Amino acid sequence: MLPDSARRLLEGKNFLYIATINQDGTPQVTPVWVDTDGKFVFVNTAIGRVKQKNTERNPNVALAIFEQTDPYNFIQIRGKVVEQIAGLAAEEHIDKMAKKYRSVDKFSKRNPDERRVILKIEPSHVSSWR
Amino acid sequence: MLPDSARRLLEGKNFLYIATINQDGTPQVTPVWVDTDGKFVFVNTAIGRVKQKNTERNPNVALAIFEQTDPYNFIQIRGKVVEQIAGLAAEEHIDKMAKKYRSVDKFSKRNPDERRVILKIEPSHVSSWR
Repeated sequence: MLPDSARRLLEGKNFLYIATINQDGTPQVTPVWVDTDGKFVFVNTAIGRVKQKNTERNPNVALAIFEQTDPYNFIQIRGKVVEQIAGLAAEEHIDKMAKKYRSVDKFSKRNPDERRVILKIEPSHVSSWR
Repeated sequence: MLPDSARRLLEGKNFLYIATINQDGTPQVTPVWVDTDGKFVFVNTAIGRVKQKNTERNPNVALAIFEQTDPYNFIQIRGKVVEQIAGLAAEEHIDKMAKKYRSVDKFSKRNPDERRVILKIEPSHVSSWR
């Protein structure tokens, strides 16, 4: 299970930075909404996006998150995408994320052609800095 | 030269997320203070830290930065560490960063044994999201 300090940051309305590896071996980093069940870290993206394709090819990710109101309270997580979950669960999950971050019932930026996917990340190492 | 939107974010009191590649090929990401001259991006770290060693081995980096007061205003930068600058310039530069981010004249967290180093990053691609 994740330490309490990490869980609190992931459950809060904070942005996660996720780093993945591009096909050419260079790194990629992007801010995302995030969710956790206390064990896994969940990131919702769309099929075909760079981080989705990158983690399909190479599941290793690095994560960093800080408290929106205190940038010196941050954690780093190393881990792997152990599963990519598409379908209804992913479509409902993006609405849950919109509720958490935007206080709206439905994710408003959905493109009609896109299929959402949850990256289920298993942390292997957590470093806390506070 | 960097686009104005990127320059403004880098000059503001915002945190930069820098992703590098570990020796084992996995990604690493960490938040840092940042500075720019409008062309290069400067990150001050210490010799021996993971991101210093990683970028010595593999200069490719990915950067992301958002406005502290508006997390939806963010940019991503891909680039390379083209030079690592140690010595007096780096020791003075960390004080400049402490002034920018902490409003103090001297960086207070300096370890007596550490040698500071500036990672000079040349951007090759900038994406803006606002």
